[in-house]
Amino acid sequence: MIRRIDRIAIELPPPSEPDPAGAAAVQELMGGRFGEMSTFMNYTFQSFNFRNRQGARPFYDLIANIAGEEFGHIELVAATINTMLTGATPETNGEPSTTPLADLLDVGNPHHFLAGGQGALPQNSQGRPWNGDYVFSSGDLVEDLTHNFFLETGARNNKLKVYEMVDHPAARALTGYLLVRGGVHQVAYARALERLTGADLTKLFPAPRIPTEKIPECKPHIERGDHLRLYRFSPSDYLELAAVFNGPHPETGEELLVIDEPPEGAPPVDLPPQPAVFAPDYAPEEIAQIAEKLRIKAGLPKEPTGEIANGKSAAAKPRRTTRRAKPAARKTGSRR
Amino acid sequence: MIRRIDRIAIELPPPSEPDPAGAAAVQELMGGRFGEMSTFMNYTFQSFNFRNRQGARPFYDLIANIAGEEFGHIELVAATINTMLTGATPETNGEPSTTPLADLLDVGNPHHFLAGGQGALPQNSQGRPWNGDYVFSSGDLVEDLTHNFFLETGARNNKLKVYEMVDHPAARALTGYLLVRGGVHQVAYARALERLTGADLTKLFPAPRIPTEKIPECKPHIERGDHLRLYRFSPSDYLELAAVFNGPHPETGEELLVIDEPPEGAPPVDLPPQPAVFAPDYAPEEIAQIAEKLRIKAGLPKEPTGEIANGKSAAAKPRRTTRRAKPAARKTGSRR
Amino acid sequence: MIRRIDRIAIELPPPSEPDPAGAAAVQELMGGRFGEMSTFMNYTFQSFNFRNRQGARPFYDLIANIAGEEFGHIELVAATINTMLTGATPETNGEPSTTPLADLLDVGNPHHFLAGGQGALPQNSQGRPWNGDYVFSSGDLVEDLTHNFFLETGARNNKLKVYEMVDHPAARALTGYLLVRGGVHQVAYARALERLTGADLTKLFPAPRIPTEKIPECKPHIERGDHLRLYRFSPSDYLELAAVFNGPHPETGEELLVIDEPPEGAPPVDLPPQPAVFAPDYAPEEIAQIAEKLRIKAGLPKEPTGEIANGKSAAAKPRRTTRRAKPAARKTGSRR
Amino acid sequence: MIRRIDRIAIELPPPSEPDPAGAAAVQELMGGRFGEMSTFMNYTFQSFNFRNRQGARPFYDLIANIAGEEFGHIELVAATINTMLTGATPETNGEPSTTPLADLLDVGNPHHFLAGGQGALPQNSQGRPWNGDYVFSSGDLVEDLTHNFFLETGARNNKLKVYEMVDHPAARALTGYLLVRGGVHQVAYARALERLTGADLTKLFPAPRIPTEKIPECKPHIERGDHLRLYRFSPSDYLELAAVFNGPHPETGEELLVIDEPPEGAPPVDLPPQPAVFAPDYAPEEIAQIAEKLRIKAGLPKEPTGEIANGKSAAAKPRRTTRRAKPAARKTGSRR
Amino acid sequence: MIRRIDRIAIELPPPSEPDPAGAAAVQELMGGRFGEMSTFMNYTFQSFNFRNRQGARPFYDLIANIAGEEFGHIELVAATINTMLTGATPETNGEPSTTPLADLLDVGNPHHFLAGGQGALPQNSQGRPWNGDYVFSSGDLVEDLTHNFFLETGARNNKLKVYEMVDHPAARALTGYLLVRGGVHQVAYARALERLTGADLTKLFPAPRIPTEKIPECKPHIERGDHLRLYRFSPSDYLELAAVFNGPHPETGEELLVIDEPPEGAPPVDLPPQPAVFAPDYAPEEIAQIAEKLRIKAGLPKEPTGEIANGKSAAAKPRRTTRRAKPAARKTGSRR
Amino acid sequence: MIRRIDRIAIELPPPSEPDPAGAAAVQELMGGRFGEMSTFMNYTFQSFNFRNRQGARPFYDLIANIAGEEFGHIELVAATINTMLTGATPETNGEPSTTPLADLLDVGNPHHFLAGGQGALPQNSQGRPWNGDYVFSSGDLVEDLTHNFFLETGARNNKLKVYEMVDHPAARALTGYLLVRGGVHQVAYARALERLTGADLTKLFPAPRIPTEKIPECKPHIERGDHLRLYRFSPSDYLELAAVFNGPHPETGEELLVIDEPPEGAPPVDLPPQPAVFAPDYAPEEIAQIAEKLRIKAGLPKEPTGEIANGKSAAAKPRRTTRRAKPAARKTGSRR
Repeated sequence: MIRRIDRIAIELPPPSEPDPAGAAAVQELMGGRFGEMSTFMNYTFQSFNFRNRQGARPFYDLIANIAGEEFGHIELVAATINTMLTGATPETNGEPSTTPLADLLDVGNPHHFLAGGQGALPQNSQGRPWNGDYVFSSGDLVEDLTHNFFLETGARNNKLKVYEMVDHPAARALTGYLLVRGGVHQVAYARALERLTGADLTKLFPAPRIPTEKIPECKPHIERGDHLRLYRFSPSDYLELAAVFNGPHPETGEELLVIDEPPEGAPPVDLPPQPAVFAPDYAPEEIAQIAEKLRIKAGLPKEPTGEIANGKSAAAKPRRTTRRAKPAARKTGSRR
Repeated sequence: MIRRIDRIAIELPPPSEPDPAGAAAVQELMGGRFGEMSTFMNYTFQSFNFRNRQGARPFYDLIANIAGEEFGHIELVAATINTMLTGATPETNGEPSTTPLADLLDVGNPHHFLAGGQGALPQNSQGRPWNGDYVFSSGDLVEDLTHNFFLETGARNNKLKVYEMVDHPAARALTGYLLVRGGVHQVAYARALERLTGADLTKLFPAPRIPTEKIPECKPHIERGDHLRLYRFSPSDYLELAAVFNGPHPETGEELLVIDEPPEGAPPVDLPPQPAVFAPDYAPEEIAQIAEKLRIKAGLPKEPTGEIANGKSAAAKPRRTTRRAKPAARKTGSRR
Repeated sequence: MIRRIDRIAIELPPPSEPDPAGAAAVQELMGGRFGEMSTFMNYTFQSFNFRNRQGARPFYDLIANIAGEEFGHIELVAATINTMLTGATPETNGEPSTTPLADLLDVGNPHHFLAGGQGALPQNSQGRPWNGDYVFSSGDLVEDLTHNFFLETGARNNKLKVYEMVDHPAARALTGYLLVRGGVHQVAYARALERLTGADLTKLFPAPRIPTEKIPECKPHIERGDHLRLYRFSPSDYLELAAVFNGPHPETGEELLVIDEPPEGAPPVDLPPQPAVFAPDYAPEEIAQIAEKLRIKAGLPKEPTGEIANGKSAAAKPRRTTRRAKPAARKTGSRR
Repeated sequence: MIRRIDRIAIELPPPSEPDPAGAAAVQELMGGRFGEMSTFMNYTFQSFNFRNRQGARPFYDLIANIAGEEFGHIELVAATINTMLTGATPETNGEPSTTPLADLLDVGNPHHFLAGGQGALPQNSQGRPWNGDYVFSSGDLVEDLTHNFFLETGARNNKLKVYEMVDHPAARALTGYLLVRGGVHQVAYARALERLTGADLTKLFPAPRIPTEKIPECKPHIERGDHLRLYRFSPSDYLELAAVFNGPHPETGEELLVIDEPPEGAPPVDLPPQPAVFAPDYAPEEIAQIAEKLRIKAGLPKEPTGEIANGKSAAAKPRRTTRRAKPAARKTGSRR
Repeated sequence: MIRRIDRIAIELPPPSEPDPAGAAAVQELMGGRFGEMSTFMNYTFQSFNFRNRQGARPFYDLIANIAGEEFGHIELVAATINTMLTGATPETNGEPSTTPLADLLDVGNPHHFLAGGQGALPQNSQGRPWNGDYVFSSGDLVEDLTHNFFLETGARNNKLKVYEMVDHPAARALTGYLLVRGGVHQVAYARALERLTGADLTKLFPAPRIPTEKIPECKPHIERGDHLRLYRFSPSDYLELAAVFNGPHPETGEELLVIDEPPEGAPPVDLPPQPAVFAPDYAPEEIAQIAEKLRIKAGLPKEPTGEIANGKSAAAKPRRTTRRAKPAARKTGSRR
Repeated sequence: MIRRIDRIAIELPPPSEPDPAGAAAVQELMGGRFGEMSTFMNYTFQSFNFRNRQGARPFYDLIANIAGEEFGHIELVAATINTMLTGATPETNGEPSTTPLADLLDVGNPHHFLAGGQGALPQNSQGRPWNGDYVFSSGDLVEDLTHNFFLETGARNNKLKVYEMVDHPAARALTGYLLVRGGVHQVAYARALERLTGADLTKLFPAPRIPTEKIPECKPHIERGDHLRLYRFSPSDYLELAAVFNGPHPETGEELLVIDEPPEGAPPVDLPPQPAVFAPDYAPEEIAQIAEKLRIKAGLPKEPTGEIANGKSAAAKPRRTTRRAKPAARKTGSRR
């Protein structure tokens, strides 16, 4: 089971110039064969199907825990795409007969904008849906780990290429972050294979053979050490990560670390309505009025309670206090 | 982001007589158009793409929170399938030349057993992969809710039919539970549509028109009130559920309730290896030896730390204490 | 545009012993690459896309008119499948916990019975959906006709093989009829190619090289001359069929005929409910009561008005008189 | 069975400026999940699979009859696409080496123009084929109607968005008409659900929540009352429509009407050849000569007999007289 | 089994102006339903599945041998696409942050460039993968030949249209060649049908009805007689081609010829690295250094041994001598 | 380009007891994600797309050459499936009305037998078509090699499982052989990665972790050293294999060898007609008569010329002499 936290992995820039063509490319990182849906679902199903978990606990914990992080990645890709598509239809004129979607006809595939509300869909850069055949869950631990290492290698390739293709600030923030975190998972699976078989994959790094440091948007994450850290995405479980994830980073030689709680993340930007595509409505203000009435009737605060990046801070405070209290605050390296 | 908890939604019976044909049918509840992958991913993407969240907060909270529960449902379906497939290859003889997989040739499709390790895959009862086209995320709130109500109706149909098709104890435990919980979500989306538009869908219940009470395996869940409760699957967020989910249950007239923390669930059964399909290995005991060494080297306990239904209880205790401490322990009805 | 007539192409036997495995095979004739969905949709789209219709009128009329007949073929395949599936779940006991669908688990793919209500679906014998890639509509008349000849050849192969695979009376009635009518279309497209280019395809018949006369269930249709007749499926249009469809039949040498009105067909059997799959309901008798009330309230007869093969004859009479009156009653051969 | 009439539902404007990108978007209304292929095939299969038709006759009649209208919709979408693509390759120069298809390389996907002859295909705006998984035919009447209401809601969304995306006159004529007619079907299924269960869906209209009256191209159809009328698309059957389709329109409160015969429609424009794509030939005039000879040889008129919008009127007259005679000319409201 | 020769069917022009949009169109000739993957795989599987080969030897030999030529066609299409994509990313600047792939965002689908390294993929012009459903292998010889004739007709249509769509020199060299060779195969299958059944398909040529001579790029091939020749693609087998492939060419009346050895072909251009997509590496020169070391260590020449169009000639000479020696040098017409 | 040789890789047993269910499982090795179509097409496309071949020649030669061997593997899988299906319909009675295909209704999916003529198709064990998405050709050499190693690992898993599932003699001969040869390719790609990067994958072998020696049907191939040999599948090219493929075998420590010519293989069994599925005809003897006449007319020998395992030896002799002469007869180890 999961608990859901209404925060995203990193702070994303607010909407600026819309970039529908770029957003189409970013979809590859969502629903492509090597996108985040694939990493999330591969590790999730491998953990579901893991037999003899007690016997192989550190490996089970590793896969199950990385799956936990990957949910945050599909969430972040979605937030990026939504950001890039905000403003892609004219705000000021909702009259259908002014052809407000005309500009979208020339970028990417029109199906994306007919099916969705200027949002993210579980499909790739070409509009083909993600599908379950992308999941490899053989049950054989060595094979599954070999697959995962290959998957992260292909994913790194795609992140690099999307980075090279799209320079929208939100896309760059996304790819910079995913390159660093995906790199950690690539290391984790290589290391798991090494621990399990004795094979040494260190010299396969980096693959593709361009150092992550060459990407400016990766640097802040590297500087704060995020290329070395495996976070534990559970308040109570997956305690044996450090049995596998340890030793020197294959590229830098720095010591790998297990962090005993998830990263804090950031509140999401509450993106504005796009009435031309009826998201969330042709006349969104009516919903707000209904919502307020419903809250009052239910004895809830009159104002919305959620914390957002572009909203008022009052509601947020108690929540964050609560949240911080929960995971025991020790942040210990996995090695000594 | 999520936090993952290594427990499943309900206690499942341990492996008994294997039932590969039945397991194939249960796959429909995993990866069919109306399976749990579909409910999980629909609500997840709808929450990702939700614009003007503050304005429509109770509706956003409702969808995002139900998504949180649905992860536990794909997990439970996977656990059921794995349980039903345990023992489907002979344990005693791993010699490949004795044709240990011969019996699987006659049930369902052989591809399932060639691709997987007697486990669950994101595909339907026919072996066709789940795909992203099953996600409807138009951004238009009324439409998305209409879709969700229809989706839960189709899902209820499929759960009922799988119930009628398969009588393996694990399958029955699963369908009994999912029928009750899916029924709650069906009510939730109908109620959301009512709150938003004023339309009254009460008389559409039950759909299909067979009362849930007729299913013996549903009764324990109904008796403890689970057909009335919407759990909050977040330690900190989605606080406005009660603004939408309230009023009488359309079938029974009892008052609907929001429960402020998730159900406790149960530890999963640690299913035994199936060496004939190399899950987790042709010689699984070797992995256990490696794991123990890795734990010791990393300064972790010699024994595996995870809590399982069929394991020793020592390791579990501290964990459960911790877990209970986190969500503030008030369990309050949503209405007063 | 079309007008729909609530009759099927030929009389089908009423339900007898259910045959779900046979029904799965018959699905190939519905939704396979060479099934009736394919013939219907190919000729329909080719007629939609036909440019310079006046210039090529006889060829346009031929294709558009055969499309009209093909609708009746998908209808007949569906009626056959529904007939074969009637009784596949036990009538007497609708209690879900008695596992009334258990027997369906062993035949074909369970998905068919989870998705449908013991009915026909637009998919092939393997459960894969018919898809639009099966439509070839190049706009080039010679190519489209070449395709259509090939399509009918492949369709004849599949009809023969389903005949060889399934001996359920309804399936045999279906394949006997479709073999004869498909044979006429195969001739029609070969003849069109000949008329247009001068090429002589006569000696390609029969393909596959087994004479239709060898199939006992084809004989009644051959005896009444149906292997020679192209019916005009329009009360007003497609008047130039005889410009193409004429001359000797390639196998028998008999003269081909254009019949100026469609065949009369037969009323369908009203198949009984299958409550175990909720078709049309878990408690179907309630619907009948509602229907009667609605009729009365709307000033319609208290009794249902439709004509069915297994119903009362009163309602039918006025209808058939009307129907005959419409198409001018001349039945003239196309040649003089 | 059907009878085919060589007329389209409404008069379409003749070809003007070609708009291949717009035509690609209109394909969504043909072969998308919510396109007219989907409405046509869903209702067609539901009618094929309808069990206990006599018992539920008004509902059977409703679904079967709407299916009849939907054929005219796929025909109209096809005519629109063909109109928009007319002229997309240069007429004056058929020399292949002048690269006459070069301009098509930049719009939509080139596959559309390689596979088709500047015509419509059963695929969506992205070029993905329509497929049978879009058909929901559970056999359960309440579920099928719930689905149909949802399907029409999604279809209305897609029609609105295509309207907002494409302003080609033919596309606007199409979407204006389909919005009105689709709206009637949306009402019909909501009403059927209400009649069957008692649930009141009135307040869900309009969905999406933009009134149809805001679309200028809808107005003529609304003014002549087409938003209130369900036409009977059969000369003889489906007599119980009025038992379900009655009462006030959910948006306007006007009384709904059953019209006892189909709309008259209009003759199609005979679109010119496009020799660059060999439609219907590289040298189309040769076909016309062959056609004339074949007609003469078969004893048919020397001139083509079909009625077209841009042709001579002589041939048309007898046909229309005949056609009008057939359906008894009473046009009566369904209520008294 | 096969032997592979490192030469391509004809000399291709070296890279010039890159043309990614054109390359996308050429992909149709690779992985479209009528592309070279389809011809290659259809004839290959038909030959694999051919029963009673001795009894039908000339037909088996024909199909199996044409399959042999088709491999060279997928190779040539791939070489063309690679040529057209060379230079599509800037050579001079490999810094990812300069967005070197930005230009590719506007042509075709971005997925092509994310998945591939500016190379060919087994997919069509729309990016949809080739799939095994494109293979028709019924085992029935008349049907398979009918299919093959239709397949070559559709293939000729697509080659003509790609010719009309793309004027890049490499694309034109490709289509000019494929039109001539595909024409030979179209004749071969028509002739096989004629020999087997007596039907005369001569007058179906050309289909589409534009003479091949009208294509300037076809002329050189026609002038050297390549439109009349069936080459034997085996050093030892398929000796009975001439029993089927003989008589006059249907368009020109010239005598068809079987050539007893394959065409000599030409060495491929060794295309330069594209570091922006890491093909073959971000720093390709490092691989060259490793390769040299490996050669030396293995006792091979220090210089690479392969023959390429743009390389040094030394290494090539011995190879060509060897190659020519093998097939006995008689080049005899098939009949006299 | 290729030359095709009409021999298969190893001698297969002649048809014995038919095994349609087993044949369905063997289809996984043909058209599954990890089947031989995938290995063949992956390496083929990677060789087509290889940039800077001269610079990376040993790696190009390795990939291109293994592609050459893989064609022989799809051929062998096809021969196996055809062998297993021979006799699956009754020989003695071709009367369609005796339902000769009835037995096939209960095994695997009926579509296989409707679409094919008791032969192999490019689809997996579930009947889903192989598709081009299974090809990974990123252009990045390290990635492509990583993929290939993973692909061969998954392929070995599937071969082992099919071995465990099917004990038909032809299937066992096939899997025994493929396990050995696939093992060589797995080693080859691991070694290539090692040579290129320095990473040491030796300890990953065997994966899955069951030694090949445990499979009795592998032993003869191991005994003659086939687990150590990479054959050169070209009379003239790919001369640098030994620069990569050398050193000790990761499991046995024996020295790896490059053999400078392909294995001799064996003539295929000419499988008997299956008239019930019209393969190659309903009356196959007629084809034989036509073939003889065509041979005589073309001046060819009256008797068929091909060499088959179950035929007369006369025709074969000249051919084999010729074949042996061609590849220079030195068989040299790659290292000294």
